[in-house]
Parts: sequence; structure tokens; C-alpha cells
Amino acid sequence: MKHALYPHRGPVPQDVIDAVEFELPAPGPGQVRVEVLAAAINPSDVLTLTGEYGMLPPLPAVGGNEGVGKVVELGSGVQGLAVGQTVLLPVGCGTWTTHLNADAAALVPLPEGADPRQLAMLTVNPPTAALLLSDILPLQAGDWVIQNAANSAVGGYLVQIARARGIHVVNVVRRESAVADVKASGADIVLVDGDDLAERVRDATGGAPIKLGIDAVGGAATGRIAAALASGGTVVNYGAMSGEPCALSPGELIFRGITLRGFWLAYWFKVTDAATRNALFADLVRQIATGALSARIQATYGLDDIKQAVAEAAAGERSGKILLLPNG
Amino acid sequence: MKHALYPHRGPVPQDVIDAVEFELPAPGPGQVRVEVLAAAINPSDVLTLTGEYGMLPPLPAVGGNEGVGKVVELGSGVQGLAVGQTVLLPVGCGTWTTHLNADAAALVPLPEGADPRQLAMLTVNPPTAALLLSDILPLQAGDWVIQNAANSAVGGYLVQIARARGIHVVNVVRRESAVADVKASGADIVLVDGDDLAERVRDATGGAPIKLGIDAVGGAATGRIAAALASGGTVVNYGAMSGEPCALSPGELIFRGITLRGFWLAYWFKVTDAATRNALFADLVRQIATGALSARIQATYGLDDIKQAVAEAAAGERSGKILLLPNG
Repeated sequence: MKHALYPHRGPVPQDVIDAVEFELPAPGPGQVRVEVLAAAINPSDVLTLTGEYGMLPPLPAVGGNEGVGKVVELGSGVQGLAVGQTVLLPVGCGTWTTHLNADAAALVPLPEGADPRQLAMLTVNPPTAALLLSDILPLQAGDWVIQNAANSAVGGYLVQIARARGIHVVNVVRRESAVADVKASGADIVLVDGDDLAERVRDATGGAPIKLGIDAVGGAATGRIAAALASGGTVVNYGAMSGEPCALSPGELIFRGITLRGFWLAYWFKVTDAATRNALFADLVRQIATGALSARIQATYGLDDIKQAVAEAAAGERSGKILLLPNG
Repeated sequence: MKHALYPHRGPVPQDVIDAVEFELPAPGPGQVRVEVLAAAINPSDVLTLTGEYGMLPPLPAVGGNEGVGKVVELGSGVQGLAVGQTVLLPVGCGTWTTHLNADAAALVPLPEGADPRQLAMLTVNPPTAALLLSDILPLQAGDWVIQNAANSAVGGYLVQIARARGIHVVNVVRRESAVADVKASGADIVLVDGDDLAERVRDATGGAPIKLGIDAVGGAATGRIAAALASGGTVVNYGAMSGEPCALSPGELIFRGITLRGFWLAYWFKVTDAATRNALFADLVRQIATGALSARIQATYGLDDIKQAVAEAAAGERSGKILLLPNG
């Protein structure tokens, strides 16, 4: 058995993590042993390795916050789970491993026959996209939103969820080469970011008022999203791809009544009751299992290639998610 | 008769405005002629001259948005106002003038015997300070707020209003030389802005949670105010003294749930019913007339010195408001 372990944190994420052999005891009472089928590398995982994330586990730690596995052994007293069952792993359990033991009660059984690689991306990005469209403002069919980093995994899910709800999305990317990918995911309007963004947005939308701006970039890009909004609009930031503070002019805040806030899925988990959480996840599982929701995958790696996988996930220009397939 | 007129706008505010002779017709039906006793020069007036404000009058225009005058002549049909009555001028009527005609119904009679220079600063800064403490968050006695630009007129009023309500204020200024002025206005805690502000705030407050941050500076100062807040806190920006966009890290927004919004008195006027507006102003008139609320005055000028007065109001380091006394 192997897992990807980091004994300390540092500025170059691939430098602090290594695949190492380990021994796993037999599953205890109420536990099961799971063989991990697929696990995603998210931006939040990279920031956890560098120490920049808002929540950091004690060290040493196994990387990975989400993934899908198959039950291979039952501890005593486990009911409702059988060997061979595909399950969603609990958030934050260290999923970059060939095997782990987990409390049976913390595992969500998944429908058979669905692509485990798509299900392995279920826990973090799809609920973020869904909640950005439901928890910031009450949006209805026909409303407009604008998002940057539209070629990210969250951006792609957001395009799909918005389309199903009849919400119009203006998609912004940072380079011309990303436009085709976003259009392929079903987006109608895709613009390359730049100083005259607000003007090009008005041309593309016919001047429709945009209520919500969704920003994962920060820096001056936040201000360009704000400038594209109708007065009284809200910018929600959920990422820091530029590495810079969000910059928003007093004029936007004071004269145009723009509000800037953040969204953090981990906080939503903390303050939301189990029934609401479960309903959201059941809906997302259904949509991913039927193929209605999916994300592009750029590459898959085994655990032995963890350094290359993390380096590729941390690089700026990707065309899809990096996944680990710990058991090949 | 003379007024301070600007035929165009430009980057150097004192360059576009001049005192010029003019003729005023007799007051029409329902109007009165007012002799202006005192009129303030606010930051918003300077930004109106440079064209950076959120609302710009048609040109040519007479400067000045607030002031106090004395009724000197009644038009036909005017009731309830007598010659000699001190009145508050309507917002935005062009108060940098020796005389003006105004609809009698738009004038608010003021108590006799109060200092007209203090009353001339009533319309813009005191309601801004009061509303920053009442309309952003529901604050109660014992709550903490933090403000920068604490040596501004709004900052000084805010200290006085907060103290009367039992709200604790951490005051931040940009230079050591401003500390004494702010302490003299009744402030307990006055700190000079800098990178370790949040830490010094914690030392000064004993770690009390601060719910509201009030920012009139922008740039990195916005982020330093945010860093001093408790998680879930709100930063409200109402000014742009640094000339830079408000900079707030995604970490503050996402991991600590900080919200950034703006406050604009002109918008509040627009969306608020007359009864609420009148109640606020009646309360402020009472407090200013009794001396419970006051602002420091750095200098007073006649209309002929309008260029020097505007230049001084636009300069960064002041210890009080610049007032015009158009009739000497």
C-alpha cells in the first residue's frame, strides 16, 4: 500500500510530497477498508501543500480531499455496505492513497456503472458551482451572471448547471486558447479578459442587466467583473488564481452599489444542516451518473507520479482536471 | 452679487473655478432670496470639479452642495418663513454664492443662536457618520467598530455619535501628527496605519471582536481594516482618499467571510422616505445646535479666495474643514 505524504509545507507544492509505502491495520468495528479508484487534485489541495489554504491539517498528512473508492473489506458490525460497493469518500480524509479505512457511516454509496473518474470530482467543484448560483442571490430563469476562469472545473460545471436552470452566463477566460474548450462545454458567450471587457459584455448581451459576478481570479480582474454588472450587483470571489488581492474601485462600491463577498464550500458545509447537504449531493450524484454534469480531465496519474501530477495541477494553463488513479 | 462658477471640469480643481459677478432676479412666487452665511467645501465638491464624482451637474455650474443662509426677501405667497430666518439650503443648489433664490418649501428653518458655521456642515458629513453606524449593520452599545481617516470631518462626527450610543471605536489615521486632533475630539483609541495594524488593534481592544470596518482611504488600507475585523465582518467604503482601488485578499473574503460594500449618502436620500430623512436631520440639527456634535474648522475664506479655498480643501493633510463665508 502506498500514499502521498507530506511531512511539511513549502512554496513549491510538488517538492513537499512523496509517494511512500505504509501499512494499514484491519478495519476496526464499524469501519470498512476501501480501495481508492480515483481522486482529484484541486486548487485547494495545492494551497494546502503550500500552506495558503484557510484550513490546514496537522502534519505529517496524506494529500487529497475527495475521491471515490470500492469497499474491499468489512469490519465487525458494518451494515448496509457490501464488498464491491462503490462509495464516495468523506471530505478531507486524505484520498491520495491506494487504501484507507473509513467509518462505514461516513461513506455514501454510489450508483454502479457510472464513471468513477467523474464521480471522484463530485465533492468539491460541483457543489461550489451549484451554490454560487443558488446561495449568493436568488436567481431565476432568464437572469444573467458573469464568471471568469470559465475554463476551470468549477466554471465548466457552472455553465452546465446554469443552462439547465435557464440562467444566462457570460464566460470570461484569460487566453484565446481557452475559448474553444469553454464553448465545447456548452457556453454561448465566451470573451477574453481585458480592459474593455465591460463594453464587450454589453455588446454580447445586448445590455441585459447582470446581477451576479463570479470571480476566481482576483487582482484587477475582480474590478473588470464588477464593471460588467448592473448597479446594485454582487461580486462573489471563490478563488485567487492571480495571487493578487481583489481590486475594486471606491466608485464601483459607492456610486454603483456593488458588493464584494466570498464563498467557501467548507464554511457552507459547517453551517448547513445534513438534510440540505444530502439533498444537494444526491442531486449532483444523479446528474453526474447520467452524464448531465461532467468535467474535462487533462491527465490521470498513478501515485508514484504524485510530484508530476501536483506540478501539473499547480500550473496555470490546463485544459482539464488532474486525477490520481491510485490503483492504476 | 458673486458666485464661484466653473465652466468646465479638470484635474486641478482650483484651476476650473472662479468668483464672478452675477445678477439675481427678484424671487418668484413661492420663492425667497437667501443671503448665504456659510458653505462647506467637501471632498465630494472637489471630485465634482475634477469630474470624478458619481453625479455631475450640467455646465456651467455654481459649486457647493450644502450651506446655511438667512432669508432677506420674500416672493409672493410665501408663508411660514420670515425675513431674518436662518435656513438650511437644499442639497446641491450651488451654495458657493453670496445670494440665491430658493423655493421656500425646500428650506428647513434652523434654530436661532446656533453657530451658522457648524450648521453649514450639517447636510453631508453628519448624516454620513450617523448612517455608517446605523444602516450597514445593527450595532448596539458595547459593539466595536474600526474606522480609518479618523481625523476627517466624517471621522470626527462618527467618534461623537458612537460615544453617545456606547459604541466603541478604534480610530486609524495615516500620520502621527493627526493623533492629537482625534484624541481631542473624544476618541479613546487612535492608531497610526501600518502593516501590523491588526495586531496593534488586538492589543488595544483586548481582542474584542470588531463587526464593522469603515474605510474612506481605499488601496491596501482597505485590506488592513478588513484584517482587524472578526470573521464575518463587513467593511463599508465611503471614500477614496488614496486614489487607489480597495484591495482585499481572497483569503479575507473566502476563509474569513469578510464582505466589502459601499455607502453613498446621495443614494440613501434617493431611496429613503421623507419622514425618515426629516427625523434624521431634526436629530442632527438638535445635536449641532446644542454643541453635542461639531467639526473642526481649519480655515474660512471669502468667495474672492475660492481658488485658495478649493486648493486647501483638496490637499491631503488638513486638521479641519474649509468653509466659505460668502458675505464675509
